[in-house]
Amino acid sequence: MTVTTPKGFRASGIAVGLKSTGKPDLALVVNDGPEPASAAVFTSNRAQANPIIWSKKVIQNGPSRAVVLNSGGANCFTGEFGYETTRLTAVAVATEIGADPENILVCSTGLIGSGDQVFRDKIVTNIPKLVSALSSEDTVAASAILTTDSVEKTAVHQSNGWSIGAMAKGAGMLAPGLATMLVVITTDAALDSDALDRALRRSTAESFDRLDSDGCMSTNDQVTLLASGGSGVTPDETEFAEALAQVCDSLAAQLQADAEGSSHDIDIEVRGAASIEDAVEVGRSVARNNLFKAAIFGNDPNWGRVLAAIGTTQADFDPYAVDVSFNGVRLCHAGGPDRPVTDCDLTPRKTHVEIDLFAGSFSATVRTNDLTHDYVHENSAYSS
Amino acid sequence: MTVTTPKGFRASGIAVGLKSTGKPDLALVVNDGPEPASAAVFTSNRAQANPIIWSKKVIQNGPSRAVVLNSGGANCFTGEFGYETTRLTAVAVATEIGADPENILVCSTGLIGSGDQVFRDKIVTNIPKLVSALSSEDTVAASAILTTDSVEKTAVHQSNGWSIGAMAKGAGMLAPGLATMLVVITTDAALDSDALDRALRRSTAESFDRLDSDGCMSTNDQVTLLASGGSGVTPDETEFAEALAQVCDSLAAQLQADAEGSSHDIDIEVRGAASIEDAVEVGRSVARNNLFKAAIFGNDPNWGRVLAAIGTTQADFDPYAVDVSFNGVRLCHAGGPDRPVTDCDLTPRKTHVEIDLFAGSFSATVRTNDLTHDYVHENSAYSS
Repeated sequence: MTVTTPKGFRASGIAVGLKSTGKPDLALVVNDGPEPASAAVFTSNRAQANPIIWSKKVIQNGPSRAVVLNSGGANCFTGEFGYETTRLTAVAVATEIGADPENILVCSTGLIGSGDQVFRDKIVTNIPKLVSALSSEDTVAASAILTTDSVEKTAVHQSNGWSIGAMAKGAGMLAPGLATMLVVITTDAALDSDALDRALRRSTAESFDRLDSDGCMSTNDQVTLLASGGSGVTPDETEFAEALAQVCDSLAAQLQADAEGSSHDIDIEVRGAASIEDAVEVGRSVARNNLFKAAIFGNDPNWGRVLAAIGTTQADFDPYAVDVSFNGVRLCHAGGPDRPVTDCDLTPRKTHVEIDLFAGSFSATVRTNDLTHDYVHENSAYSS
Repeated sequence: MTVTTPKGFRASGIAVGLKSTGKPDLALVVNDGPEPASAAVFTSNRAQANPIIWSKKVIQNGPSRAVVLNSGGANCFTGEFGYETTRLTAVAVATEIGADPENILVCSTGLIGSGDQVFRDKIVTNIPKLVSALSSEDTVAASAILTTDSVEKTAVHQSNGWSIGAMAKGAGMLAPGLATMLVVITTDAALDSDALDRALRRSTAESFDRLDSDGCMSTNDQVTLLASGGSGVTPDETEFAEALAQVCDSLAAQLQADAEGSSHDIDIEVRGAASIEDAVEVGRSVARNNLFKAAIFGNDPNWGRVLAAIGTTQADFDPYAVDVSFNGVRLCHAGGPDRPVTDCDLTPRKTHVEIDLFAGSFSATVRTNDLTHDYVHENSAYSS
């Protein structure tokens, strides 16, 4: 159980033929209340899929009652026909569960530009079946949202009388600007939509927004947070936000660990920055540097490529003051060589790069992955 | 003959053991006048190599008399010792040719962080031999500046009584912000340094600055333009600038064609932009998108990844108005599918992507390459 761990939620997942593998590809999460509330954050990519355009309106219409998600097609850049597919999907769900279509969130993931009549029919005609499969003990929804992911990503937090459950998908096009990927988080805490929105924005900013696996921002990213009030408990907002942050952090780490073709999970910790923004900018510049990422794949602690990357930023620092360590071994001190690179072992998957700018007291960690042959293969051998 | 095609220049190249292959790795270009003038543009990376720090001062000291270049070591982030190596190199050249060290430009290329006593000795003690090899019919200098390049890059322009010659190196870390790579351009036109500077900035902005092979900006990029006045002819400034632009464009195309591990040369032509800046920003966003670059390697005209990339820019456009063509075949019209992707053949190395934003009348072309297994191999199998 994941999104159905909190009281007041049912979920389901079925296979409707969108995936050529025949695996589950349609999922539904329904909020049964008694006090439904909701919040969501969306990709900041200006090229937005039809479900994003739809869901951005829905989240303004008061508490969302359900979120329906499909893999096997992004329904992005599919024109007015594609938007109508999204709307008809919401209508079908609303009809079956007795709600207003204006309160049904829709998410899609898959190939951009795909979403024809066959795609529409497979989804819309199977909504009754999807609703029939709803259960408070569902085990399929988390797999039905996967695309190139190799494992399900879920997280649960149990607290004093209330809980959080979550599921996520995402393995490529993984570089959020505001939100990221498809994530559904549920809670039976009794909180209104404004409180959920505050907690969600804070949690995503420090988790998904700092995951930058391949520098490519998706058109379909959405993180949805639904509260049912089913526990009857209203937690302290800070306590709830911290629990939510832990859940988001766990999911971000799971996404990183399953990133397409990756052989290293690289945590780039930037310290001594003049501001959080500087720390994130510096971390992201390294995370997006292909030469650095290829070097890590080759187990080469190439600190020169780190300095070359951060030199392209506007952050406050003196290149000749910077220290760089790999897996705890300082190889660059004050912008010059420190120890031999052979002192450092980069063979473990888990890789820690620490950059000290000596320009202030702020720090941030950006998560990324290495650039590998398998990444190139997965993203060149077929369309995705 | 390349940089010695114009009258008033001698050049040389020798092997001093900086390259493990034993190939030439030290080059010199001397401006014998009679009316020496010079201009240069440098990397906008804030992490700058010692030769860049040195040469930025030199170019302010009046006409430069020579440029000495080494491959086999970037002399970047090598501390005060490295800066002294650069200075001693200039002093040695100045002593041998009878000039002031303050008028000797220095360029280096190779691994960042490399530049020890052995490196210094190999360069400085061999300057007399390098000067002895100077010739107006040199054929070695253009090869002595290469690193991972597989071929020499040269260009010559002959005009009415005057000429331009040029040599360049660069195969990776190829994403300029102001200048790029190591390039030496000579001319026997009689022009002062201010005129050279104007022409050089204009020409590099529209050539090297729009070459973005792998998104990684170098710490050592320098484009040097030396004029001897040897022809006795002062060309019209516009005529000279146009000739210089042709030379730079030719070199940029040669750099693109030899980019590390690449299998496609991709020209991204952005049309209908509201400004030149918008056109370049949109082109660069696509050039830096790993998913797009991997798709081209797989001969997949994935227009969805193009739209996802340009959606991350601040440029003025409506995603639902954009057209995208691959090799002359329009696959995306008004932000939706147009023809089947199978209508398009991406097997030729030369690849043309045309993006029409329908937001104005400006256009620009950004050159890039695909993301291949060979790129990953070259940049992970050994340090560079």
